[in-house]
Amino acid sequence: MDSSLTDQALAYHQFPIPGKISVVPTKPLDNQHDLSLAYSPGVAAACEAIANDQQSTRYYTSRSNLVAVISNGTAVLGLGNIGPYAAKPVMEGKACLFQKFAGINVFDIELAETDPDKLVDAIAMMEPTFGGINLEDIKAPECFYIERKLTERMSIPVFHDDQHGTAIVASAGIVNGLKLAEKSLDQVKLVCSGAGAAAIACLDLLVRQGLRKENILLVDSKGVVYEGRDASMEFNKSRYATTSTARTLADAVKDADVFLGCSAAGLLTPEMVSTMALRPLILALANPEPEIRPEVARAVRSDCLIATGRSDYPNQVNNVLCFPFLFRGALDVEAMRITDEMKLACVNAIANLAQQPIPPEVAKAYPNHKLEFGPDYFIPTPFDPRLISEVASAVALAAMDSGVARRPIGDIDAYRQSLLK
Amino acid sequence: MDSSLTDQALAYHQFPIPGKISVVPTKPLDNQHDLSLAYSPGVAAACEAIANDQQSTRYYTSRSNLVAVISNGTAVLGLGNIGPYAAKPVMEGKACLFQKFAGINVFDIELAETDPDKLVDAIAMMEPTFGGINLEDIKAPECFYIERKLTERMSIPVFHDDQHGTAIVASAGIVNGLKLAEKSLDQVKLVCSGAGAAAIACLDLLVRQGLRKENILLVDSKGVVYEGRDASMEFNKSRYATTSTARTLADAVKDADVFLGCSAAGLLTPEMVSTMALRPLILALANPEPEIRPEVARAVRSDCLIATGRSDYPNQVNNVLCFPFLFRGALDVEAMRITDEMKLACVNAIANLAQQPIPPEVAKAYPNHKLEFGPDYFIPTPFDPRLISEVASAVALAAMDSGVARRPIGDIDAYRQSLLK
Repeated sequence: MDSSLTDQALAYHQFPIPGKISVVPTKPLDNQHDLSLAYSPGVAAACEAIANDQQSTRYYTSRSNLVAVISNGTAVLGLGNIGPYAAKPVMEGKACLFQKFAGINVFDIELAETDPDKLVDAIAMMEPTFGGINLEDIKAPECFYIERKLTERMSIPVFHDDQHGTAIVASAGIVNGLKLAEKSLDQVKLVCSGAGAAAIACLDLLVRQGLRKENILLVDSKGVVYEGRDASMEFNKSRYATTSTARTLADAVKDADVFLGCSAAGLLTPEMVSTMALRPLILALANPEPEIRPEVARAVRSDCLIATGRSDYPNQVNNVLCFPFLFRGALDVEAMRITDEMKLACVNAIANLAQQPIPPEVAKAYPNHKLEFGPDYFIPTPFDPRLISEVASAVALAAMDSGVARRPIGDIDAYRQSLLK
Repeated sequence: MDSSLTDQALAYHQFPIPGKISVVPTKPLDNQHDLSLAYSPGVAAACEAIANDQQSTRYYTSRSNLVAVISNGTAVLGLGNIGPYAAKPVMEGKACLFQKFAGINVFDIELAETDPDKLVDAIAMMEPTFGGINLEDIKAPECFYIERKLTERMSIPVFHDDQHGTAIVASAGIVNGLKLAEKSLDQVKLVCSGAGAAAIACLDLLVRQGLRKENILLVDSKGVVYEGRDASMEFNKSRYATTSTARTLADAVKDADVFLGCSAAGLLTPEMVSTMALRPLILALANPEPEIRPEVARAVRSDCLIATGRSDYPNQVNNVLCFPFLFRGALDVEAMRITDEMKLACVNAIANLAQQPIPPEVAKAYPNHKLEFGPDYFIPTPFDPRLISEVASAVALAAMDSGVARRPIGDIDAYRQSLLK
C-alpha cells in the first residue's frame, strides 16, 4: 500500500471519532413517555409477547435484521494471524458494507480464542441475539470444522465468507469468463494455485456446477497436490489430490483453460501464461498484489480473460457482490441455513447481471470503463443498484425451493421490486 | 400494566421497523475510494497499526466507546426466568438509553446458556470487542460468581447493573433522604425487604458508607434472616443474618428508620409504616407495583419520606441515573475495572445534584412537580442535563484516584465542561 493511502486510511479510521460504526436508537426517546415504552414498564409487553411465542422476536426486536460478523483474527486479509484486536477494523468495515449495500445491521464480535470447540460453544450460545452468523478471517483448517459444527447446532444461517463468498463471486466470474471463451465448465482443465479455505471452497462449488474433479490440479506451496505426496495431508486438500505427473505450477498450467489464484503475489509468470490453452481465463485473486497483473498477462497472451481482486482493474472479484445480498435474501425468508442451492442461485444471479445492459446511472459512475459484457466487463461492479434485487430475490427463492425458508415469500416479483426501492 | 400502555408499547417496538436499534456507518461510504479506505486495501493500515500496538485499538476502532449489555434472560425485570429471546427487548432498550444519555454505543448480547462457567468463558473471550461489560438480568446467586470471575479475568470494567446500579441510586436516595430526616447513616436502623442481587448489593454499598451491620435486618420470603435459621443459606444472604429476635417483616420494621424494599408489590402495609421511627425513609422499589404506594404511606405517616421505582411519582430510583454516566467516566479514562471508590463517587454526585438549584430548562419539563430539594425531590430526574457532567467526571476522578485509570485526564474541569456540550 502506498504511504498516501496508509495516511488517508488511518485518518479515515480515527477522525472525527474513532472507528467506523455507531449504534443508534430507531425509535423516539424524547421524554418520559417514550422512555416508558422503550424501557420499563412498557418493554415488558414485548418481553411477554416473546415469552409466549418465541417467533415474535421478529416483530419486537432487531434480531431478524441483525447479523454477527465474528472473527478470532487468525487469518486477517493477507496479514495472517494478527489477533482479534487487529482484526477489528476489518470487521467494522464489514459491518459498514452490510448496512450500506443491504440495510443489514451488524455487530462485529472479535473473540480472543483459538480453540475450535470453545469458539463453537461461545458462538452457538449467541443464537438468541442474531438472525445470522458471518464468520470472517478464521484460519484453515479450523474454519471448516467451526462452520460445520455451528451449522449443525444453530438454526440460523452460518456463512464463512472467506470460503463461500469468494467461491460464489469467483464462480460467477468463471461462468461468464467461460461463456466469453466459448468453453464449457465440464470440459475445462483448471489449475488452482493456493490450497487455503477460499481455494477449497471455490473448487467445491465449481465441482457442484459441473467441473470434473479429474480436470483439477491443486497447487500449494510445495507444488502440485498429488496422491501419496504427504500421508498427513489435511482432508480438504487431499480430496483434490491428482494422479497426474505434473509436479510444479509451471507443469500444471500448461494447456490449462483456467487459472484460479488464491495464493500470493506474482506466482503466475508470463512464461507460464504463454503455455496455457487458447483464450485462457485467469482469476488472480491474491490481494493486494495479484498472482499476475492484467497488463503483464495480456502482453504475452492478448486472447486472455483476466479478473483480479483489485478495484483499480476491471472485473474485480469482490465478496461485497455476494454477502450483503445473500444475507438479505436469507434473512427475509428466515432461512434456517445456507444451502448449496442458495449459493448457486447467487452465482447465477451475479453472472447473469453482468450479461444485462447497464443502467445509465451505473455507467456514469465508471466514466473510464465501458460496462458492456465482454473481456473488460464480465463481473458486475459493487455499486450496481440491481445487485440487491437480483441476488437477494434469487437467494430467497432458492431457500424456499430447498425447503429451508421459515417464512416463504408469496410474490417474489413484488419482493424483488421492493428491494430496488 | 394497563392495556393501552401494552398496545402502545407493542406498536412502538414493531413499527415502522422491528426493534429499537440500528448499526450505522459513521464514515462516508459513497464511492470506490471511500470503500478502499473503509475496507480492503486501506483497512490494512489500521490493522497493522493495532498489530504493532494493541493500545491503538482506541484510535482506529469503535471499541473504546462500545459496551456490551449481556444477559441470559434468567431474571428479567419482574418477569423472572423468561429466557434470552424474551430478554432482548430489555437489552435493546438499555442500548438506547446508553446512547441517548451518554453517547455510548452498545451491542446487546443475549446468550442461551445458564452454566456460570460457560458464560464466563464466552464473555471473557469477547474482551477484544468491547470497552466495557454491563451484565443485565442474570439471576442470583450465579450473577455474583459470574461478575467476580469476569472482573478477575478481564481488564475492562464489568458491572452488573441490577446489583450495583440499583445500589448506587438507592444509596443516593438514602443519603439525601437521611439529610432531610436529619439522621446519620451510622446511627439508623434499616430493614431490607428482599434478599436478591439488588438487595445484597445495596446493603454492601451502604455498609461501605457507614451503615452498621448490626443495625440491618434482612427479610426474605421466609421472614427475617437470622443466625442459624437455615444451614444451607446462600453466603451472600447469611452475611447479613441477625442476632435479633425479630422474625417477621412487621417485627422488623418496628422503630426502623429506613425501609428498603427490593421485594414485591404491597409487602409494606400502612400498619407497619405506622410503627416506624420518626421521619421514616421508605424506598419501595418493587416494579411496577411498589411495596407501598406513596399516598398510602403518607396517609398514615405524614412525616415519611418516600421514593419508588416508578416514573409517575416523585423521587424515582432509576438505574438510568447511574449506568450511562458511570460507564462514560470509566470509558473516558479507560478504567481497568469499577472500584468501590467509583461507585461511591457516583452515589455522592447523584445525591449532591438533587441538592443544587434546578436549571429552568429542566424545571420546564416537569410543570406539575416542584424540583426543589425536599421530600418531593431528593433524587434527580433522568432528564437532568447535568447528570452526565457531574457523575461521569466524579467517576473518572475516582478511577484515577483509585489507580485503575489507564488514561488519566489532566484537566478534569475541562472534561466536565466538555460533557455538558
